Amino acid sequence: MEDPRSIFTMIIQGEIPCHKVYEDDLIFAFLDINPSSPGHTLVVPKEPARSLDELSDDSAQAIGRALPRISKAVLEATGASEFNVIQNNGPNAFQSVFHVHFHIIPKMEDGRGLTFPFNPSSIDHEDGARLSSSIRDLLSSPPSQ
Amino acid sequence: MEDPRSIFTMIIQGEIPCHKVYEDDLIFAFLDINPSSPGHTLVVPKEPARSLDELSDDSAQAIGRALPRISKAVLEATGASEFNVIQNNGPNAFQSVFHVHFHIIPKMEDGRGLTFPFNPSSIDHEDGARLSSSIRDLLSSPPSQ
Repeated sequence: MEDPRSIFTMIIQGEIPCHKVYEDDLIFAFLDINPSSPGHTLVVPKEPARSLDELSDDSAQAIGRALPRISKAVLEATGASEFNVIQNNGPNAFQSVFHVHFHIIPKMEDGRGLTFPFNPSSIDHEDGARLSSSIRDLLSSPPSQ
Repeated sequence: MEDPRSIFTMIIQGEIPCHKVYEDDLIFAFLDINPSSPGHTLVVPKEPARSLDELSDDSAQAIGRALPRISKAVLEATGASEFNVIQNNGPNAFQSVFHVHFHIIPKMEDGRGLTFPFNPSSIDHEDGARLSSSIRDLLSSPPSQ
Protein backbone atom coordinates (compact mmCIF):
# COMPACT_ATOMS: atom_id res chain seq x y z
CA MET A 1 0.00 0.00 0.00
CA GLU A 2 1.27 3.44 -0.87
CA ASP A 3 2.37 5.62 2.05
CA PRO A 4 -0.32 8.31 2.30
CA ARG A 5 2.12 10.82 3.79
CA SER A 6 3.73 13.45 1.56
CA ILE A 7 7.47 13.45 1.02
CA PHE A 8 7.53 16.67 3.09
CA THR A 9 5.89 14.92 6.04
CA MET A 10 8.60 12.25 5.81
CA ILE A 11 11.25 14.98 5.78
CA ILE A 12 9.60 16.71 8.78
CA GLN A 13 9.51 13.39 10.64
CA GLY A 14 13.21 12.83 9.94
CA GLU A 15 12.78 9.77 7.72
CA ILE A 16 14.24 11.53 4.68
CA PRO A 17 17.32 13.71 5.18
CA CYS A 18 17.31 17.41 4.36
CA HIS A 19 19.30 20.57 4.91
CA LYS A 20 17.09 22.00 7.65
CA VAL A 21 17.09 25.76 8.22
CA TYR A 22 14.25 26.28 10.72
CA GLU A 23 11.70 24.46 12.85
CA ASP A 24 9.07 25.41 15.39
CA ASP A 25 5.81 23.81 16.58
CA LEU A 26 3.95 24.53 13.34
CA ILE A 27 6.59 25.18 10.67
CA PHE A 28 9.53 23.36 9.08
CA ALA A 29 11.97 24.92 6.57
CA PHE A 30 14.76 23.34 4.53
CA LEU A 31 16.75 23.84 1.33
CA ASP A 32 15.09 22.80 -1.95
CA ILE A 33 16.96 19.85 -3.42
CA ASN A 34 16.49 21.34 -6.91
CA PRO A 35 17.35 24.97 -6.24
CA SER A 36 16.61 27.74 -8.73
CA SER A 37 19.44 29.62 -6.99
CA PRO A 38 21.69 29.02 -3.95
CA GLY A 39 19.69 29.27 -0.72
CA HIS A 40 16.37 28.33 -2.38
CA THR A 41 14.37 27.38 0.72
CA LEU A 42 11.01 25.65 1.24
CA VAL A 43 8.84 26.75 4.17
CA VAL A 44 6.28 24.05 5.00
CA PRO A 45 3.50 23.83 7.61
CA LYS A 46 3.66 20.61 9.65
CA GLU A 47 -0.09 20.38 9.01
CA PRO A 48 -0.38 18.29 5.83
CA ALA A 49 -2.80 20.56 3.93
CA ARG A 50 -2.74 19.98 0.18
CA SER A 51 -3.26 23.57 -0.90
CA LEU A 52 -3.19 27.01 0.70
CA ASP A 53 -6.96 27.49 0.63
CA GLU A 54 -7.25 24.40 2.86
CA LEU A 55 -4.68 25.52 5.45
CA SER A 56 -5.84 26.30 9.02
CA ASP A 57 -5.70 29.84 10.40
CA ASP A 58 -3.07 28.83 12.97
CA SER A 59 -0.67 27.35 10.43
CA ALA A 60 -1.26 30.17 7.93
CA GLN A 61 -0.54 32.80 10.55
CA ALA A 62 2.62 30.98 11.67
CA ILE A 63 3.92 30.73 8.10
CA GLY A 64 3.17 34.40 7.50
CA ARG A 65 5.14 35.36 10.57
CA ALA A 66 8.06 33.07 9.66
CA LEU A 67 8.49 34.20 6.04
CA PRO A 68 10.14 37.61 6.65
CA ARG A 69 12.45 36.16 9.34
CA ILE A 70 13.56 33.23 7.20
CA SER A 71 13.87 35.44 4.08
CA LYS A 72 16.12 37.84 5.98
CA ALA A 73 18.40 34.99 7.10
CA VAL A 74 18.50 33.50 3.59
CA LEU A 75 19.51 36.89 2.12
CA GLU A 76 22.21 37.36 4.72
CA ALA A 77 23.59 33.83 4.24
CA THR A 78 23.64 34.03 0.43
CA GLY A 79 24.60 37.68 -0.01
CA ALA A 80 21.53 38.21 -2.23
CA SER A 81 19.52 41.40 -1.79
CA GLU A 82 16.49 40.46 -3.90
CA PHE A 83 14.18 37.44 -3.82
CA ASN A 84 10.85 35.92 -4.80
CA VAL A 85 8.35 34.04 -2.69
CA ILE A 86 6.19 31.56 -4.62
CA GLN A 87 3.49 29.18 -3.50
CA ASN A 88 1.78 26.92 -6.06
CA ASN A 89 -1.58 25.16 -5.81
CA GLY A 90 -2.59 22.48 -8.31
CA PRO A 91 -0.71 20.47 -10.95
CA ASN A 92 -1.39 23.03 -13.72
CA ALA A 93 -0.08 25.72 -11.39
CA PHE A 94 3.27 23.90 -11.06
CA GLN A 95 2.59 22.18 -7.73
CA SER A 96 4.41 18.86 -7.67
CA VAL A 97 4.31 17.93 -3.96
CA PHE A 98 0.78 18.05 -2.59
CA HIS A 99 1.63 19.50 0.80
CA VAL A 100 1.56 23.31 1.08
CA HIS A 101 5.00 24.90 0.65
CA PHE A 102 6.32 28.41 0.11
CA HIS A 103 9.49 28.79 -1.97
CA ILE A 104 11.92 31.53 -0.95
CA ILE A 105 14.14 32.03 -4.02
CA PRO A 106 17.08 34.46 -3.88
CA LYS A 107 17.54 36.45 -7.09
CA MET A 108 21.27 36.54 -7.74
CA GLU A 109 23.08 39.35 -9.56
CA ASP A 110 24.04 36.91 -12.31
CA GLY A 111 20.33 36.30 -12.99
CA ARG A 112 19.98 32.94 -11.21
CA GLY A 113 16.64 32.59 -9.49
CA LEU A 114 13.10 32.79 -10.68
CA THR A 115 12.26 34.07 -14.14
CA PHE A 116 8.72 34.20 -15.38
CA PRO A 117 6.34 36.17 -17.53
CA PHE A 118 3.31 37.62 -15.76
CA ASN A 119 1.37 37.73 -19.06
CA PRO A 120 -0.48 40.83 -17.92
CA SER A 121 -3.63 42.09 -19.59
CA SER A 122 -5.71 45.22 -18.89
CA ILE A 123 -8.59 44.90 -16.45
CA ASP A 124 -12.19 45.18 -17.72
CA HIS A 125 -13.64 47.51 -15.08
CA GLU A 126 -17.16 46.17 -15.43
CA ASP A 127 -15.96 42.62 -14.85
CA GLY A 128 -13.73 43.92 -12.06
CA ALA A 129 -16.61 45.56 -10.21
CA ARG A 130 -18.72 42.40 -10.45
CA LEU A 131 -15.89 40.11 -9.42
CA SER A 132 -14.64 42.20 -6.50
CA SER A 133 -18.20 42.50 -5.19
CA SER A 134 -18.58 38.75 -5.37
CA ILE A 135 -15.28 38.13 -3.52
CA ARG A 136 -16.19 40.74 -0.87
CA ASP A 137 -19.52 39.00 -0.29
CA LEU A 138 -17.81 35.64 0.08
CA LEU A 139 -15.34 37.11 2.57
CA SER A 140 -18.00 38.78 4.70
CA SER A 141 -20.05 35.63 5.15
CA PRO A 142 -19.27 33.48 8.21
CA PRO A 143 -16.25 31.17 7.70
CA SER A 144 -17.21 27.59 6.96
CA GLN A 145 -14.54 26.11 9.23
CA MET B 1 8.09 67.43 -4.46
CA GLU B 2 7.34 63.80 -5.20
CA ASP B 3 4.74 62.14 -2.95
CA PRO B 4 6.75 59.72 -0.79
CA ARG B 5 3.75 57.38 -0.43
CA SER B 6 3.47 54.32 -2.65
CA ILE B 7 0.60 54.01 -5.10
CA PHE B 8 -0.74 51.23 -2.84
CA THR B 9 -0.86 53.58 0.15
CA MET B 10 -2.87 56.01 -1.98
CA ILE B 11 -5.23 53.18 -2.94
CA ILE B 12 -5.55 52.14 0.74
CA GLN B 13 -6.30 55.73 1.71
CA GLY B 14 -9.00 55.94 -0.95
CA GLU B 15 -7.29 58.57 -3.12
CA ILE B 16 -6.98 56.21 -6.08
CA PRO B 17 -9.97 53.98 -6.92
CA CYS B 18 -9.71 50.20 -6.91
CA HIS B 19 -11.84 47.07 -6.95
CA LYS B 20 -11.53 46.30 -3.23
CA VAL B 21 -12.04 42.72 -2.07
CA TYR B 22 -11.02 42.83 1.61
CA GLU B 23 -9.91 45.16 4.39
CA ASP B 24 -9.12 44.82 8.08
CA ASP B 25 -6.94 46.78 10.53
CA LEU B 26 -3.67 45.59 8.99
CA ILE B 27 -4.48 44.32 5.48
CA PHE B 28 -6.02 45.65 2.25
CA ALA B 29 -6.79 43.52 -0.84
CA PHE B 30 -7.97 44.55 -4.31
CA LEU B 31 -7.95 43.36 -7.92
CA ASP B 32 -4.73 43.88 -9.91
CA ILE B 33 -5.37 46.40 -12.68
CA ASN B 34 -3.17 44.31 -15.03
CA PRO B 35 -4.45 40.82 -14.26
CA SER B 36 -2.64 37.69 -15.41
CA SER B 37 -6.07 36.00 -15.15
CA PRO B 38 -9.54 37.04 -13.97
CA GLY B 39 -9.61 37.49 -10.18
CA HIS B 40 -5.89 38.31 -9.95
CA THR B 41 -5.80 39.90 -6.48
CA LEU B 42 -3.17 41.87 -4.57
CA VAL B 43 -2.96 41.46 -0.79
CA VAL B 44 -1.11 44.39 0.77
CA PRO B 45 -0.17 45.25 4.36
CA LYS B 46 -1.21 48.77 5.37
CA GLU B 47 2.29 49.08 6.80
CA PRO B 48 4.36 50.56 3.96
CA ALA B 49 7.30 48.11 4.13
CA ARG B 50 9.29 48.00 0.90
CA SER B 51 10.12 44.30 0.96
CA LEU B 52 9.01 41.21 2.85
CA ASP B 53 12.19 40.93 4.91
CA GLU B 54 11.41 44.40 6.34
CA LEU B 55 7.79 43.64 7.30
CA SER B 56 6.81 43.61 11.01
CA ASP B 57 5.75 40.38 12.72
CA ASP B 58 2.21 41.69 13.24
CA SER B 59 1.62 42.55 9.58
CA ALA B 60 3.32 39.37 8.36
CA GLN B 61 1.17 37.21 10.61
CA ALA B 62 -1.99 39.03 9.50
CA ILE B 63 -1.15 38.54 5.82
CA GLY B 64 -0.39 34.86 6.39
CA ARG B 65 -3.77 34.40 8.05
CA ALA B 66 -5.60 36.30 5.30
CA LEU B 67 -4.08 34.51 2.31
CA PRO B 68 -5.99 31.19 2.57
CA ARG B 69 -9.29 32.99 3.26
CA ILE B 70 -8.92 35.41 0.36
CA SER B 71 -7.63 32.65 -1.96
CA LYS B 72 -10.69 30.52 -1.17
CA ALA B 73 -13.05 33.39 -2.00
CA VAL B 74 -11.16 34.21 -5.22
CA LEU B 75 -11.41 30.55 -6.33
CA GLU B 76 -15.11 30.41 -5.56
CA ALA B 77 -15.82 33.71 -7.34
CA THR B 78 -13.83 32.82 -10.47
CA GLY B 79 -14.57 29.10 -10.69
CA ALA B 80 -10.83 28.35 -10.77
CA SER B 81 -9.55 25.40 -8.75
CA GLU B 82 -5.82 26.11 -9.02
CA PHE B 83 -3.76 29.21 -8.26
CA ASN B 84 -0.35 30.69 -7.59
CA VAL B 85 0.74 33.07 -4.84
CA ILE B 86 3.72 35.27 -5.71
CA GLN B 87 5.51 37.95 -3.78
CA ASN B 88 8.45 39.80 -5.39
CA ASN B 89 11.25 41.74 -3.70
CA GLY B 90 13.59 43.96 -5.72
CA PRO B 91 13.52 45.36 -9.27
CA ASN B 92 15.45 42.39 -10.71
CA ALA B 93 12.95 40.08 -8.99
CA PHE B 94 10.04 41.76 -10.87
CA GLN B 95 8.93 44.10 -8.07
CA SER B 96 7.53 47.28 -9.62
CA VAL B 97 5.69 48.88 -6.67
CA PHE B 98 7.92 49.20 -3.62
CA HIS B 99 5.30 48.35 -1.03
CA VAL B 100 5.01 44.66 -0.06
CA HIS B 101 2.27 42.83 -1.97
CA PHE B 102 1.25 39.22 -2.48
CA HIS B 103 -0.34 38.30 -5.81
CA ILE B 104 -3.08 35.64 -5.77
CA ILE B 105 -3.32 34.48 -9.40
CA PRO B 106 -6.01 31.97 -10.42
CA LYS B 107 -4.77 29.40 -12.96
CA MET B 108 -7.56 28.97 -15.49
CA GLU B 109 -8.26 25.80 -17.44
CA ASP B 110 -7.45 27.64 -20.69
CA GLY B 111 -3.94 28.31 -19.35
CA ARG B 112 -4.41 31.95 -18.32
CA GLY B 113 -2.53 32.80 -15.14
CA LEU B 114 1.09 32.57 -14.19
CA THR B 115 3.59 30.72 -16.34
CA PHE B 116 7.24 30.55 -15.43
CA PRO B 117 10.30 28.36 -15.56
CA PHE B 118 11.83 27.43 -12.22
CA ASN B 119 15.22 26.82 -13.88
CA PRO B 120 15.98 24.06 -11.40
CA SER B 121 19.47 22.68 -10.84
CA SER B 122 20.66 19.85 -8.57
CA ILE B 123 21.79 20.76 -5.10
CA ASP B 124 25.48 20.46 -4.16
CA HIS B 125 25.17 18.74 -0.77
CA GLU B 126 28.39 20.17 0.60
CA ASP B 127 27.26 23.70 -0.22
CA GLY B 128 23.81 22.82 1.12
CA ALA B 129 25.16 21.71 4.48
CA ARG B 130 27.24 24.87 4.83
CA LEU B 131 24.43 27.18 3.74
CA SER B 132 21.70 25.60 5.86
CA SER B 133 23.97 25.73 8.90
CA SER B 134 24.61 29.41 8.27
CA ILE B 135 20.86 30.17 7.89
CA ARG B 136 20.07 28.16 11.05
CA ASP B 137 22.65 30.15 13.00
CA LEU B 138 21.20 33.42 11.77
CA LEU B 139 17.70 32.32 12.77
CA SER B 140 18.71 31.21 16.24
CA SER B 141 20.42 34.49 17.12
CA PRO B 142 18.26 37.16 18.82
CA PRO B 143 16.12 39.15 16.35
CA SER B 144 17.55 42.58 15.56
CA GLN B 145 14.17 44.35 15.65
